[in-house]
Amino acid sequence: MSEIKQKAKRAKEITYDLATISTEEKDRALVTMAKQLEQDTDLILNANAKDITNGKEQGFSDTLLDRLTLTRERIADMADGLRQVATLTDPIGEVLQEIQRPNGLKIEQKRVPLGVIGIIYEARPNVTVDAAGLCLKAGNAVLLRGSSSAIHSNQVIVHSLQQALEGIGFIKEAIQLIEDTSRESATELFTLTEYLDVLIPRGGASLIKAVVENASVPVLETGVGNCHIYIDETANFDMASTITINAKTQRPSVCNAAETLLIHRKWANKNLSSLLDQLKKHKVDLFGEEELLKWDPDVTVAKHKDWAEEYLDLKIAIKLVDSTKEAIAHIRTYGTHHSEAIISESAQNVTAFLNGIDAAAVYHNASTRFTDGFEFGFGAEIGISTQKLHARGPMGLEALTSTKYMIFGEGQIKS
Amino acid sequence: MSEIKQKAKRAKEITYDLATISTEEKDRALVTMAKQLEQDTDLILNANAKDITNGKEQGFSDTLLDRLTLTRERIADMADGLRQVATLTDPIGEVLQEIQRPNGLKIEQKRVPLGVIGIIYEARPNVTVDAAGLCLKAGNAVLLRGSSSAIHSNQVIVHSLQQALEGIGFIKEAIQLIEDTSRESATELFTLTEYLDVLIPRGGASLIKAVVENASVPVLETGVGNCHIYIDETANFDMASTITINAKTQRPSVCNAAETLLIHRKWANKNLSSLLDQLKKHKVDLFGEEELLKWDPDVTVAKHKDWAEEYLDLKIAIKLVDSTKEAIAHIRTYGTHHSEAIISESAQNVTAFLNGIDAAAVYHNASTRFTDGFEFGFGAEIGISTQKLHARGPMGLEALTSTKYMIFGEGQIKS
Repeated sequence: MSEIKQKAKRAKEITYDLATISTEEKDRALVTMAKQLEQDTDLILNANAKDITNGKEQGFSDTLLDRLTLTRERIADMADGLRQVATLTDPIGEVLQEIQRPNGLKIEQKRVPLGVIGIIYEARPNVTVDAAGLCLKAGNAVLLRGSSSAIHSNQVIVHSLQQALEGIGFIKEAIQLIEDTSRESATELFTLTEYLDVLIPRGGASLIKAVVENASVPVLETGVGNCHIYIDETANFDMASTITINAKTQRPSVCNAAETLLIHRKWANKNLSSLLDQLKKHKVDLFGEEELLKWDPDVTVAKHKDWAEEYLDLKIAIKLVDSTKEAIAHIRTYGTHHSEAIISESAQNVTAFLNGIDAAAVYHNASTRFTDGFEFGFGAEIGISTQKLHARGPMGLEALTSTKYMIFGEGQIKS
Repeated sequence: MSEIKQKAKRAKEITYDLATISTEEKDRALVTMAKQLEQDTDLILNANAKDITNGKEQGFSDTLLDRLTLTRERIADMADGLRQVATLTDPIGEVLQEIQRPNGLKIEQKRVPLGVIGIIYEARPNVTVDAAGLCLKAGNAVLLRGSSSAIHSNQVIVHSLQQALEGIGFIKEAIQLIEDTSRESATELFTLTEYLDVLIPRGGASLIKAVVENASVPVLETGVGNCHIYIDETANFDMASTITINAKTQRPSVCNAAETLLIHRKWANKNLSSLLDQLKKHKVDLFGEEELLKWDPDVTVAKHKDWAEEYLDLKIAIKLVDSTKEAIAHIRTYGTHHSEAIISESAQNVTAFLNGIDAAAVYHNASTRFTDGFEFGFGAEIGISTQKLHARGPMGLEALTSTKYMIFGEGQIKS
């Protein structure tokens, strides 16, 4: 039996016990995991150094190396993250509905764990800890399948977490690492419907696409964000400019950062030069249709692919439109159903935009950067769902649960 | 462009308009559809006669022919079903959460349609009407892909429904039939992630398996039910016998009928002969381990596959166990996560069973036949979900919806 199948089988076996573990025990496990990570900081840094050396040898980009790198501070943040998860309300056991039927049947709908969750992700070793903590709190067994580039870090981290669990008599296989990071192992994970209840990909567009197209295990799709800001004819200049700069530059590498700016032509005639100056002051490269050169010679003429691009960088695509309707049509064509904003003082245009855009989060007069579990007040998140089934938007603990109907009778039969 | 792609593209285009249609208009559409079906009864019966003739020529079984057959009464039931859906509460627009954040952002989570729903199903032409009605009420566009055996019936029915919509100025492509019933057309439907938001298979185990394994469009898995009744040591004889007979014989062809009986050996020693007599009186064929021959010579010795079989017939597999734990282990191995029941007077065993079984519905002292949208008080259903994501158990209108966060600001940016 392959490593994955063996670990997945074990994970499935323990789901029944994990489902009934008390909140207190789970919280104790999380806090113990945090402590152990802190104790093992040097071990983790040593392992991480190996991954970084390998990465450099393989010519990784600076961005990739940064994602891979752990520091004392980042490890402390990971530990704090676990302590925060311990403070969140346990969703398991919550009664969502109580139905009393005329025939005397009592029906309770209860929240239960999903069971076995597979997380497939890229370089960041902090995902190992974040995902493990959230899955454990919601009573699930997790199979972590990180990238080969972070294998040494992930091995030491998971060893540390398992040691913490073992020390307090908690089932240590609640958290398991898939050490085989070959392409074949990913393919095997995609089809383990017998043991896996859900697969969550965390990473770039190509990883997510591969999982969606190839997995027969149900998938929770996360994260690609080609987010738009539409500046309506009636938008206030200061507000539009402040929000645009924030959504583009505050942290360009994340999925809720803005990638395309749609501007009403009438607004542009008055304000575009100033806005472009602001963007350039913030070191943003401008892409746009040829006519934008009239406003600014520094604009690079956009190719078709620019409209679909998630730059994740200090770049923005800009397009002039003649109506809210045209802005909506553009977003329907190129958007990724993540976060879309309108800056406007016209109630009519705002309503048309908020209703007409099909996305997890639609904003009026605010930055798209708020699509985030913490910003919504949900606490830590496992990702931002851009699909429509099960969970949409920031996914907290509840997204890691299912429900079960319990029906209590006294001999009722169907007539 | 293929027929499917063309229709799917059109369905996607109209989702934006469908999402904002009022409850009154949708209900009017449903009632008009019902009237039109009644008016077109003769046309539908003529088309159905062609399908039945073809089916007989191809040597269909009586069961299959029965599923295919429409009568005046069945058409009237279909029309009544639409009128009932019109009386259900419209889920669209419901505000699920209202969050006021410290920074002044107001976040509303609203219920919205899923968008485009593909239904792939087998012979029953009534699914065409039931699915169309529910999808329409929840503001979705539906693509109906029935089987070639029912193509004449489905064509006339969908023509009738579209005519009703057209007559009142409702977008008629809210309901579309895929007329190409080739295997290739099914495969194309499986991968249309660009236009389809979800695929719902309705039919037998092999159809569902094919969809789950091959679809890259998200799937709502419905229906296979290898349901168990566990008669505990402490079970009352009359209750156990009545529930068993009801769950097995009241309507054996449906997914919530019982297929396997697990009996505690101590209870069997006292009561098994009487129970087997009851089952035989109801014409149920008995399958079981060799030791059951001691109780009844009419028992057929079970093969391994009997434990996994969804008979959908007057057949039952019977196994003796020595504990609730053994019963739970058997169900974990062979169950399909649909509906499972324990008959018992022991609170301890009941709790162990209800918590230890991973299924959409778990019963104490009641028949598994109650897993049904009407019996739960939800009204009409699109199917029984046996998966854990999105919806589990009977799926009513809410299962055909998603949500969307609308965020209202006054210039907020992320700091």
